[in-house]
Amino acid sequence: MVSISRRSEVEPFHAMDVLAEATRRRQAGAPVISMAVGQPGHPAPQVALEAARDALAHGRIGYTDALGLVELRQKLAGYYKDRHGVSVDPARIAVTTGSSAGFNLAFLTLFDAGDAVAIARPGYPAYRAILSALGLKVVEVPVNAGTGFTLTPESLEAAQSQAGVRLKGVLIASPANPTGTVTSREQLKAVYDYCKGQGISLISDEIYHGLTYAGEDTTALEFGDDAVIINSFSKYYCMTGWRIGWMVLPEEAARPMECLAQSLYISAPELSQVAAIAALGAGEELEHYKASCAANREFLLKRLPQLGMPLLSPMDGAFYAYVDVSRFTNDSMAFAKRMLAEINVAATPGMDFDPVDGHLALRMSYAGTMTEMFEATDRIGRWLA
Amino acid sequence: MVSISRRSEVEPFHAMDVLAEATRRRQAGAPVISMAVGQPGHPAPQVALEAARDALAHGRIGYTDALGLVELRQKLAGYYKDRHGVSVDPARIAVTTGSSAGFNLAFLTLFDAGDAVAIARPGYPAYRAILSALGLKVVEVPVNAGTGFTLTPESLEAAQSQAGVRLKGVLIASPANPTGTVTSREQLKAVYDYCKGQGISLISDEIYHGLTYAGEDTTALEFGDDAVIINSFSKYYCMTGWRIGWMVLPEEAARPMECLAQSLYISAPELSQVAAIAALGAGEELEHYKASCAANREFLLKRLPQLGMPLLSPMDGAFYAYVDVSRFTNDSMAFAKRMLAEINVAATPGMDFDPVDGHLALRMSYAGTMTEMFEATDRIGRWLA
Repeated sequence: MVSISRRSEVEPFHAMDVLAEATRRRQAGAPVISMAVGQPGHPAPQVALEAARDALAHGRIGYTDALGLVELRQKLAGYYKDRHGVSVDPARIAVTTGSSAGFNLAFLTLFDAGDAVAIARPGYPAYRAILSALGLKVVEVPVNAGTGFTLTPESLEAAQSQAGVRLKGVLIASPANPTGTVTSREQLKAVYDYCKGQGISLISDEIYHGLTYAGEDTTALEFGDDAVIINSFSKYYCMTGWRIGWMVLPEEAARPMECLAQSLYISAPELSQVAAIAALGAGEELEHYKASCAANREFLLKRLPQLGMPLLSPMDGAFYAYVDVSRFTNDSMAFAKRMLAEINVAATPGMDFDPVDGHLALRMSYAGTMTEMFEATDRIGRWLA
Repeated sequence: MVSISRRSEVEPFHAMDVLAEATRRRQAGAPVISMAVGQPGHPAPQVALEAARDALAHGRIGYTDALGLVELRQKLAGYYKDRHGVSVDPARIAVTTGSSAGFNLAFLTLFDAGDAVAIARPGYPAYRAILSALGLKVVEVPVNAGTGFTLTPESLEAAQSQAGVRLKGVLIASPANPTGTVTSREQLKAVYDYCKGQGISLISDEIYHGLTYAGEDTTALEFGDDAVIINSFSKYYCMTGWRIGWMVLPEEAARPMECLAQSLYISAPELSQVAAIAALGAGEELEHYKASCAANREFLLKRLPQLGMPLLSPMDGAFYAYVDVSRFTNDSMAFAKRMLAEINVAATPGMDFDPVDGHLALRMSYAGTMTEMFEATDRIGRWLA
């Protein structure tokens, strides 16, 4: 009999449980529409698929350096130069096995057990689970209309007083999941300056960059080299299942992170790295995909409130509508299960993102096709009527 | 300025540093032969490459369920039935992002910070690094001719007394890295029974199964359902850079592990999962690869001692020769660096595997081609002369 650790008592990532149930139903022949997982309906860009096909045809897919292929790291440095006018030494760039690896490595590199790290509530549930599995104290900072749905120096200060801790780290995401919040340059700079002033390590989750419909993408790199940047090819680049992302690290964090990555991951999948190099040049195809998300967003902005599901947050970026379902339920988990069982529409219960108020909320991903959006909202409309 | 955690102060995985240096030299045009990393020279089997090509041609590569594609989990259950006559419920099988993810998830699921876990010395360095990054106490148990180069109930008992701790976990590997030890069925059963009797969680690293030249592969599953099994497609299946492996879990550990995996990994790369399904049926091609390893082994068994590098351990499985270089150096790290710089042959310093005696040892992988083995040993012979 093995014994099970206390630290493995993390909350399930309900979106993944919903995905598993949706997969089972689909395999049994049910016409499932998944709005549960943050996953583009579009495949990886053609140039990326071609690059992968070429690599398959020529030789071994092997381990790469732990920090990734040099060419990819150089191209990523070019990305920051082109899009943000910022010079980044490729030596500070680490290719990771999705942003999942980025978060794990960042938390391990920057924080020791017992350290307190602030995250937004509602926010991405894996933050909480990984932090807690690594023995870190999670300080949830409520974000709402009053804070512009993002973290602010004031809300961070208040959270520290209330929790009676000094923060060791702050994790901010823009565009944010599930709220869709785009943090403005001024707001992000205020958080950056606050953290720097207080000696707090800042992690900037920029994985939804490229999918901003109102406002603009700002990287914390624009303010200096002191933050850890986490990014991914999963969302804008439509490469979820390839498990490929990257980090930009302050110089002094690069080698400790590399040593951890050598043992914890060896390297990111090589085929995905090769495809990612090509994906960075995919331009137009990805802008088309973004335009389809923008159209879905316009549609849902009107349609969801008509269904009695008003938006809880601005929906300016990423591809999520975070809606209030309190008119129908005070248990969004049961509601989501029933919706999947009865009309084959999968969405994620708000409990994933917000342990306090999430029982009244639902997250719907609009990363899929317009047809799916029409059909899903039709089914929901008939179902609720 | 970010601060760097104490727990990130893990030893570098020197083999990966050597790989990075070898890559740099190769890109600069040097005729590097790498015997540093445990990586087959053979590509993934043809059927796996074809399956990957098909998947690229048909639709999106997406997230899978956190535990992996159902078909792969079912095929893996069949693997245990066919090879070991053991029935395993696919619900107990988890597909992982390489065995790296398997170790991380097993340690997190079974152990809390401060728990003591025994590993063999010499042994795979990532064990030590991951355990230590996760706040676990590493109990190194020396293995040598006296213990048959493997862990035994007696050596585990002695290690507990000496370290003054009660073990929470034991990790045993067969075939073992770097020693090549194949633990016999009787020896493995003794360790299994000992752990079960003492309430110690046993992790059996079986990633080199299939590459056994003397003795036979035994899975701990043959004795019962109480151990965590870790396996991989990287070695026998020649799929290192695909980052794909699996675990078999005691029933009660499956759901806690799934919840951690949902947040820490989301899922293993889908393309690699599809290719792995095919790889399980690759039979003959892989047996050819194994035969080439066996031929390399026969060659090195004779040649290395002639070069003044006697074997430190039996070399019965995996694809490593662990040799004594004390005749030439008492700093195997400097020796390995010089060997790479002067004759472009990369090998891994023993410090990776053994912090106590590794300064006198070198690990040479014979996963490559016979031509590479000839050429590398020729260069070494001329160099040492």
